[in-house]
Amino acid sequence: MSSEKSGDVRATRHIRLTSHPGQQGPSGAPAIHWGAATAAKRGPVIGTTTNRSQRNVIGTHSGSYGVYRALAVAAGNLVKGHRADLTNTSPTDLIGPNPQWGEAEKMVSIDPWGASVADVFSEHIAQGYDVRPTIAVTKAHIDLPEIRHAMVFQRLIPDNRVLLENGSAVVTKVAIEPVWWLPGVARRFNVSEADLRRNLFEETGGMYPELVTRSDLEVFLPPIGGQTLYIFGNPRDLADSNVTLTARVHDECNGSDVFGSDICTCRPYLTHAIEECIKGAQQGGVGLIAYSRKEGRALGEVTKFLVYNARKRQLGGDSADKYFLRTECVAGVQDMRFQELMPDVLHWLGIRKIHRLVSMSNDKFDAITGSGIEVGERVKIPDELVPADARVEIEAKIAAGYFTDGAVPDGDQLAATKGRTLG
Amino acid sequence: MSSEKSGDVRATRHIRLTSHPGQQGPSGAPAIHWGAATAAKRGPVIGTTTNRSQRNVIGTHSGSYGVYRALAVAAGNLVKGHRADLTNTSPTDLIGPNPQWGEAEKMVSIDPWGASVADVFSEHIAQGYDVRPTIAVTKAHIDLPEIRHAMVFQRLIPDNRVLLENGSAVVTKVAIEPVWWLPGVARRFNVSEADLRRNLFEETGGMYPELVTRSDLEVFLPPIGGQTLYIFGNPRDLADSNVTLTARVHDECNGSDVFGSDICTCRPYLTHAIEECIKGAQQGGVGLIAYSRKEGRALGEVTKFLVYNARKRQLGGDSADKYFLRTECVAGVQDMRFQELMPDVLHWLGIRKIHRLVSMSNDKFDAITGSGIEVGERVKIPDELVPADARVEIEAKIAAGYFTDGAVPDGDQLAATKGRTLG
Repeated sequence: MSSEKSGDVRATRHIRLTSHPGQQGPSGAPAIHWGAATAAKRGPVIGTTTNRSQRNVIGTHSGSYGVYRALAVAAGNLVKGHRADLTNTSPTDLIGPNPQWGEAEKMVSIDPWGASVADVFSEHIAQGYDVRPTIAVTKAHIDLPEIRHAMVFQRLIPDNRVLLENGSAVVTKVAIEPVWWLPGVARRFNVSEADLRRNLFEETGGMYPELVTRSDLEVFLPPIGGQTLYIFGNPRDLADSNVTLTARVHDECNGSDVFGSDICTCRPYLTHAIEECIKGAQQGGVGLIAYSRKEGRALGEVTKFLVYNARKRQLGGDSADKYFLRTECVAGVQDMRFQELMPDVLHWLGIRKIHRLVSMSNDKFDAITGSGIEVGERVKIPDELVPADARVEIEAKIAAGYFTDGAVPDGDQLAATKGRTLG
Repeated sequence: MSSEKSGDVRATRHIRLTSHPGQQGPSGAPAIHWGAATAAKRGPVIGTTTNRSQRNVIGTHSGSYGVYRALAVAAGNLVKGHRADLTNTSPTDLIGPNPQWGEAEKMVSIDPWGASVADVFSEHIAQGYDVRPTIAVTKAHIDLPEIRHAMVFQRLIPDNRVLLENGSAVVTKVAIEPVWWLPGVARRFNVSEADLRRNLFEETGGMYPELVTRSDLEVFLPPIGGQTLYIFGNPRDLADSNVTLTARVHDECNGSDVFGSDICTCRPYLTHAIEECIKGAQQGGVGLIAYSRKEGRALGEVTKFLVYNARKRQLGGDSADKYFLRTECVAGVQDMRFQELMPDVLHWLGIRKIHRLVSMSNDKFDAITGSGIEVGERVKIPDELVPADARVEIEAKIAAGYFTDGAVPDGDQLAATKGRTLG
């Protein structure tokens, strides 16, 4: 084990560039026993920047917004060491504990106890440990134009429980920050933990040397976006496989989800899924939308727009047979979303069966069923909801393995499926 | 200057935990002269993880999605050292160069040459430098239910240029990744560069030791979300202050922007702004939506939902007079969005006057005008678009300084403005 040598080019106060095992001393941080059946045995996840000796993870809270918090301290807006006042913030609905919480390998990217820290780690907090929630659960009314439209056409009828007369749907919603247990993440991707740590460090240009100096710290709070759940009906029904579950796992696409770009099916499929969730909940079932912050297949929006240009300018124009190729040329991969980690949230909710999966993605289907969750029906996006310029995408995906109950397009058909040129 | 001592707890290959000035050797990275008037004098921003000796920044490309790229390399999906094939990816519309690009302090968080690297740094690329775009410009058709609704009520009439018969609006859209010039960012926040660097490092739990070891590297690619622009009309008109500009600067709110939560005015104000942008462009002007990834006032969604619960459960219920207090108790600040950096994108576009600013925010107004851009009219959200449960927010903000042409609520009125309880 190498000893540390740290340097500070400007300030006078000592800056520690990284830490090494054993430096903290015996009084330090509580141990984390990932996958232990109870919160007491598992121990709290502590990513505070206030008291270094309490820390038992690499990284800090709030995903990428930790950078803004650091900026707020630098700018003098936020007092260094502010402790959150958690009064009245506890979950509106209890999720779990579910049996899956006691199986380490079932959930490697979520802290199952992250919503209830004020309760289950109250003793630690009373002793001065800065334990923060990584999950928050609240209630909301959501009002979407597409749902009002479905009401006008009487595809949806208000019941004043799930869907109100004014067009609002009543939901429980959950925000979740990523908490990665590195040994488990490595196993999901069939790599050694050492290789995972080293690549996470080196391929980010040197983020968090503790990834390589602190093999004793097994938990990483990565600076990335998390996910949001929208639950229609009673959240506790999610864990009851006798209650019909309608679910969509949706990956963020700002251009469609917010702005309605017609080059893909993202928002239409999402709002169709919400309609199906409402119907399902009205019929005594429960609905779930799991929304992940993975813009542009987790390549980010700059890469996504570069690919759009390359698709629309290539020789022969934008065609379904070259859909994946253009992404691969620019980004080096067709997709970076890693559905391998996606089922974690389903296990957190206690789900054992999805009766109606509103997704055609084979990657998502394989990840879900591969993790031990049964899938019943797969619900396609209705043809009339596919936007004008999105045929290229959907046909290319069907040819590559996306679910369909129709014909799979052949090479000629793919080549003939063309999108708009750049105007 | 301290020398480096690096350690590797597991692997056999040497891992460098951080770097120090001068290690790269003379053949190394091109210099960056921030604010230089031409691309050649400024030099390329190089955040590659492929060839360390080329790097002239801290951090890497793609904002927080750099973590996914690292995961892709670890998982063996992405070949280490993949170089992007930029064929056909160049901008559909040229933005600039504008005179503001030659003023270092006007833009401290965007690389003005980030869209045109394949062109302006073609020689570097030919020499093997891994220069990547941080900005991408493309064309799109966007189709929003609210715009179709405005057409039904003949508030909008298709002109087949800006707005098509089928309800789609024709836009130029731009994705931008953050590129922070640290000396300039520090001056924006009136802190020393050393304090900024130190706090960014320490308050993220030790991200990027180069922030403190490499004072010679002045540029940082932070792992945070960027922004997206939607331009209605001719993008080059943005730099012409004789052309009427309608603009909204919008901060992400996934719960409203995508899901239509009725607790705030975000999506209704955004779609109203899009309607105003379309109208303006049809009348010979130009429209701009600048959308920033700053979820929940850049506190993140977990904190946002915790605050919702605290607001709705407090003694006396959710009321406008305690709106800001609840955020401050949980998060330590009322807001972490830092409008100080927001005007950069306006200067990048060459904007000198916003004739119609579709925003009531005093923070945004102050930041824009303080940066030297003239603002004409300020356009309120129409009363009928404020959702049921969003009165608390909008009244609290008006009392705190948001623009209004009506009366400012007093203490009694604020206390009487109540939101829904948790049901």
